Amino acid sequence: MVSQQEDIFKNVILHAKEYGYIFPSSEIYDGLSAVYDYAQNGVELKRNIREYWWKSMVQMHENIVGIDASIFMHPTTWKASGHVDAFNDPLIDNKDSKKRYRADVLIEDYCEKLHQKALKEIEKAKKRFGEAFDEAQFIETNPCVVEYYAKKKEILERMARGLDSGDLADVKALIEELEIADPDTGSKNWTEVRQFNLMFGTKLGASTDTAMDLYLRPETAQGIFVNFLNVQKTGRMKIPFGIAQTGKAFRNEIVARQFIFRMREFEQMEMQFFVKPGEEMKYYEYWKDTRLKWHLSLGMGAENYRYHDHEKLAHYANAATDIEFNFPFGFKELEGIHSRMDFDLKAHEQFSGKKLQFFDNETNSSYVPYVVETSVGLDRMFLSIFSKSLQEETLEDGLTRTVLKLPAVLAPTKAAILPLVKKDGLPEIAQEIMEDLKWDFNVAYDEKDAVGRRYRRADALGTPFCITVDHQTLEDKTVTIRHRDTMKQDRVAIVDLRTLINEEVSIKNWLKRAM
Amino acid sequence: MVSQQEDIFKNVILHAKEYGYIFPSSEIYDGLSAVYDYAQNGVELKRNIREYWWKSMVQMHENIVGIDASIFMHPTTWKASGHVDAFNDPLIDNKDSKKRYRADVLIEDYCEKLHQKALKEIEKAKKRFGEAFDEAQFIETNPCVVEYYAKKKEILERMARGLDSGDLADVKALIEELEIADPDTGSKNWTEVRQFNLMFGTKLGASTDTAMDLYLRPETAQGIFVNFLNVQKTGRMKIPFGIAQTGKAFRNEIVARQFIFRMREFEQMEMQFFVKPGEEMKYYEYWKDTRLKWHLSLGMGAENYRYHDHEKLAHYANAATDIEFNFPFGFKELEGIHSRMDFDLKAHEQFSGKKLQFFDNETNSSYVPYVVETSVGLDRMFLSIFSKSLQEETLEDGLTRTVLKLPAVLAPTKAAILPLVKKDGLPEIAQEIMEDLKWDFNVAYDEKDAVGRRYRRADALGTPFCITVDHQTLEDKTVTIRHRDTMKQDRVAIVDLRTLINEEVSIKNWLKRAM
Repeated sequence: MVSQQEDIFKNVILHAKEYGYIFPSSEIYDGLSAVYDYAQNGVELKRNIREYWWKSMVQMHENIVGIDASIFMHPTTWKASGHVDAFNDPLIDNKDSKKRYRADVLIEDYCEKLHQKALKEIEKAKKRFGEAFDEAQFIETNPCVVEYYAKKKEILERMARGLDSGDLADVKALIEELEIADPDTGSKNWTEVRQFNLMFGTKLGASTDTAMDLYLRPETAQGIFVNFLNVQKTGRMKIPFGIAQTGKAFRNEIVARQFIFRMREFEQMEMQFFVKPGEEMKYYEYWKDTRLKWHLSLGMGAENYRYHDHEKLAHYANAATDIEFNFPFGFKELEGIHSRMDFDLKAHEQFSGKKLQFFDNETNSSYVPYVVETSVGLDRMFLSIFSKSLQEETLEDGLTRTVLKLPAVLAPTKAAILPLVKKDGLPEIAQEIMEDLKWDFNVAYDEKDAVGRRYRRADALGTPFCITVDHQTLEDKTVTIRHRDTMKQDRVAIVDLRTLINEEVSIKNWLKRAM
Repeated sequence: MVSQQEDIFKNVILHAKEYGYIFPSSEIYDGLSAVYDYAQNGVELKRNIREYWWKSMVQMHENIVGIDASIFMHPTTWKASGHVDAFNDPLIDNKDSKKRYRADVLIEDYCEKLHQKALKEIEKAKKRFGEAFDEAQFIETNPCVVEYYAKKKEILERMARGLDSGDLADVKALIEELEIADPDTGSKNWTEVRQFNLMFGTKLGASTDTAMDLYLRPETAQGIFVNFLNVQKTGRMKIPFGIAQTGKAFRNEIVARQFIFRMREFEQMEMQFFVKPGEEMKYYEYWKDTRLKWHLSLGMGAENYRYHDHEKLAHYANAATDIEFNFPFGFKELEGIHSRMDFDLKAHEQFSGKKLQFFDNETNSSYVPYVVETSVGLDRMFLSIFSKSLQEETLEDGLTRTVLKLPAVLAPTKAAILPLVKKDGLPEIAQEIMEDLKWDFNVAYDEKDAVGRRYRRADALGTPFCITVDHQTLEDKTVTIRHRDTMKQDRVAIVDLRTLINEEVSIKNWLKRAM
């Protein structure tokens, strides 16, 4: 991450704490690594994102229903899904520093350095040759660049072979051959590489003989697959149909970092769409489009989203793409759309001995449906919106303001009600307006400090409207309504406030752009 | 539980599965004891209850804000709260049957039998003496009854002494003296009694040296206490103020039962209200009233709720009451309201070394606030509403119908849109109505089977309105709207549907009864 990006990211984290969006978990006990709590404003933003997703998926689609499966599942679920055997990270310890690393990350970091060296050569040449520079040709012919890239490719391929085949000794050998050192201490005294399962385990029941080993689910998807037939039958669903779910999942990440981007406890918003085999690509394309449109409806700028189609597919997928977002640390996965075929349902059929098939009335035959999945991280979604909304603006008078330009539909508080001064009956009118509006919206009352300062506070909190009660209000029952993003103020009648605010914040109006 | 109650309860569980409210978790793997999944209609009912609670607590109270703390917390949290040392059940195993029991439950069941014997004597006497019977005098003077009650009191007191002082050998001795046998097998061959901690444990981090022992939180309240000062400062909150939270908690119950009433994974809706020491009883009374009013607003019948003030208080409380609900298995705790004093904040001060005090600008002094807590189980709330709503009615024609009279504000689907017949363009109009209404409500389209059968289906699903498109619709753009509870039908214009439905289902209108 370059330094300017780092500064922006640090500022995001500071602002999130200072304005009550995100606190480190258990901070009075010096925190818990890679675990965070949503604070008084964060919880509302998170709730609003979840609601916006849920309504767009479940309420707006006649053929999608929700469920809420428990975090605890029968342990055989995770045998069937492959997580018990294959949900691992390759770990290596440095014997001197006692620090633990992901072996694959050490090797990838080494390759990244080769890549940077190549880029440096290219930059140098670009400066030397000016406009005449043919970058593509240079990359293909310059001996240094060719060697850097060839070496990088060779290393990554060898690592992938080692990890895929389980030849971890060769991964260790690779680290030694490349003379990779502990980034913290420089020591090259490494242990063997071994696989570490990322699921958190616990025990159900008290007796040591009868206690059952459970896992905290590492993904919510399996809760949908094991309930597929129950939902289909009791809900009388016909293919194609979807099951949506939001909920917590847990991964014992070795190196969790980047704030709430990769946490050990996180929330997913997933939808599994069950289709007839052979029709999966049609729905894969449909959901690719539909999900991007949903993101774009929030108005964070089309340039901040891109698809990243997977070249190397997981064993359960025949097509996969990420919707990436331009986070403060670069473009990273925000949502995944995967065509999972019948991998999961077939595996559960095999491990449970139960048929998980759809009976098609029209053809009088049964089949295991294919699945197209959309999976977005709620915490990542939060970070994408929050980080991009946080802006420093220079105003006409040369001063700057900090403004959190959250989409109004997602903002925790919709309006701040401000009496211009703390006398002449203005606070009473402001309170009355609040008492009236609070039935429909989250609103806040603020009478402390000069009104300009209160505007700045509302800006930094992301509140889309400030409603100011002044002396004219006493005469004609009008107030000013100030718009956070433009700072423009309009004079409006108190009786019109509800409709005006509703127009700008209602989910219905925002969803219209997404559907 | 008497047999009629048992039948009602069985019927509740069956209906919950058949109509897509609750499925056993991981059912294809034969389930997981005391863990359940919320199905396609259950998830909506659960979401609506949560939302109704959240709005009433957070949106409607200027001085209450929410948070969403993580399930993982620093382990010292649970030392401070007392859960590591004292959140135990006393267990005893039968050596022959290998069955495990809670020692206190075995003893309480024995006492319950004494109580039943006394009741039997009283009933007999009542029949013998008729109207002349003086029950109070009989209880005080009849030698049998006096002895039963004296013995019961003596046993329970001795058990409490043993458990409180840690003298588990005496609890075992008591079981032996009373000749309590394994209820399943009759064996009296018991192990020692020992304490079993109810928290689920797991390990954070990969290294065996550095892995941290974590717990899955057994209650959400501590997430509020550790964040108290961060919320107060960044939210500029003034005493009195509250912090509300909904979220999962986990308890490794030995004997979990009664469907979703006592689960190993469950969801709480809690609010901690921070007050000035000395003012706690005022707010305790306020929240007792306010919370009951909230429950009553849902219209399930005042006779189904009652307070149960605690005589024996937990070590952290100076007043406590339960709001009990008349479940199919009798009156049981639905919500707890506790005056917790400064027990929790003081304990966290001690264990963290950080001050957790409120600075009072007016008196220029700091103090540790007292806390009044309201804590309701979301799953219990679900069970209370669902079980009481499920009714069998005999109709005028002598037939019966099954109807789920959920409060309209909580019903998963607000309206079913039905074309009278599947031809003449009626389905198209019904679809149009659905496409229009779905922006505002969860609605369903149903064209299968005779309309009477569709009405019954909507009744059993708890859908408050059926909207039927018939041939008159073609002429005058009106439809019939049928009310689930009365089965009355009105003819209304299509354009008026949105307002009509909204009037009956909007949270705002329901909350007016609760505030």
